Amino acid sequence: MAEIDESTTPEDITDAVVASFDGCRDPRLREIATALVRHLHAFALEVELTGEEWLAGIRFLTEAGRITDDVRQEFILLSDTLGFSMLVDAIAHERRQGGTESTVLGPFWVSGSPERGYGESIVEEPSGEPAWVHGRVLDPNGNPIPGAMLDVWQNGDDMLYQVQKANGNPGNLRGVFTTRDDGAFAFVAVRPTDYTIPDDGPVGRMLAATGRHPWRPAHLHTIVSAPGFETLVTHVFDSESTYLDSDAVFGVKPSLVRRFVPRAADDQARPAGVEGAWYSLETDFVLVPSASR
Amino acid sequence: MAEIDESTTPEDITDAVVASFDGCRDPRLREIATALVRHLHAFALEVELTGEEWLAGIRFLTEAGRITDDVRQEFILLSDTLGFSMLVDAIAHERRQGGTESTVLGPFWVSGSPERGYGESIVEEPSGEPAWVHGRVLDPNGNPIPGAMLDVWQNGDDMLYQVQKANGNPGNLRGVFTTRDDGAFAFVAVRPTDYTIPDDGPVGRMLAATGRHPWRPAHLHTIVSAPGFETLVTHVFDSESTYLDSDAVFGVKPSLVRRFVPRAADDQARPAGVEGAWYSLETDFVLVPSASR
Repeated sequence: MAEIDESTTPEDITDAVVASFDGCRDPRLREIATALVRHLHAFALEVELTGEEWLAGIRFLTEAGRITDDVRQEFILLSDTLGFSMLVDAIAHERRQGGTESTVLGPFWVSGSPERGYGESIVEEPSGEPAWVHGRVLDPNGNPIPGAMLDVWQNGDDMLYQVQKANGNPGNLRGVFTTRDDGAFAFVAVRPTDYTIPDDGPVGRMLAATGRHPWRPAHLHTIVSAPGFETLVTHVFDSESTYLDSDAVFGVKPSLVRRFVPRAADDQARPAGVEGAWYSLETDFVLVPSASR
Repeated sequence: MAEIDESTTPEDITDAVVASFDGCRDPRLREIATALVRHLHAFALEVELTGEEWLAGIRFLTEAGRITDDVRQEFILLSDTLGFSMLVDAIAHERRQGGTESTVLGPFWVSGSPERGYGESIVEEPSGEPAWVHGRVLDPNGNPIPGAMLDVWQNGDDMLYQVQKANGNPGNLRGVFTTRDDGAFAFVAVRPTDYTIPDDGPVGRMLAATGRHPWRPAHLHTIVSAPGFETLVTHVFDSESTYLDSDAVFGVKPSLVRRFVPRAADDQARPAGVEGAWYSLETDFVLVPSASR
């Protein structure tokens, strides 16, 4: 299968690699491996990739591996900035009509965020302007889903997520909430700011070399889940962000954009523990029933 | 460019990413980035890649990064085992007819091998059965190329290259030679053995999962270079190897296969410093003039 003589064409090499998967007992893995090889080879042939360019690619992946650790994930960042994550999301989304739209997970989610009660704050240290985030989790018919879980995380006004920082409270700007019997959730957050994805590694150099910027429009992350429903990974975007139409990771969908409404310090709806001027943001999340269970 | 609404198709996401490279000032980089994105996206669409499968891919790359260091190069191993390295070689080879065929560099070359004289040995510690390797470096018209450099490296009978081992002489089984005025080179090596590529990492798990073996047929590596000629990266394969037709990295070309001729201990041609039975292997290398200089 792998013997290649002088009359061998590049296509013959591709065929030899595909044939090497003949013994694969997992049909899905064989399908994926075969398609990946065919498309990667077609890419190299189309651009007539040189050895020097191949080596640059090896170095890129090596550097991405070197900078990746428990809290920095350069490979997810690469997938995100090449639109690959949003594409995988779109493929899944075609099977999940009728619910709130999904978007990228991003590289900053971590498990084990603190469980917090209705209306409590995720702000454990000064992180920006306070925002009261509230809404309901609903099924596609508008019925509330009690006991749904919201795992939320966001950056502060230093543009960073807590996991990017060596110091500070690990639970700051993260929390897990459970909806009440009426499907409602509420928490105190801060208004997120636009920020740059980590651009001090190979992905940042790729963006600079290709004439792109590293900015993401301000947003809150959440994963919403409930028994019997498809888990939703999404964002709420700030309608006043500068980068809604040039997100470095192609994550914006218009249906996910919401307004942070300014509120005065003496507004009677001011949540407990909040001082001075604040914002409110209302958003519901619609989950669709799990497929075929 | 990156705003995506509910009527957006996966193809629209691909187009948005391609458009993001519009500002790239390096036309070749833009060509490569665009083609890579189009082919990667086409792959995901064709197999309808799921989020779980995407995550498995991220984990694979992360593990490849983690195991890669100064002497272990899992990304080159991945490229090799997917036939990508041989494909890049074949693309270059189409522009380099008439010389000795090339094959993969592999992950075990390191710079700075000891310079050695004509006929000297690269064997610094017991490593297998001795072999006298000799021949000439020629141009396509059969004229000798004096002063050509051969950088050679090989594994020993423990199946390992010296760079894979923490102990021992770093220069063992490596050396740099210069051809004489008649284009000749010669050195004492050992007869190489079949060996497995490093299969204790993600690439090894990929091979096992897809029903492939990790073996390479026995071979010597060399990089042959001379001023005014294209540098040649190639192997000499042992004609008696079991794996000539199933090389894990698709590197075998029939024109590179040679016979290790058995020689008796009392053979008068026995090289200095060799004791007992030995082998001889003769092979020439033909370099083609550098393109357009």
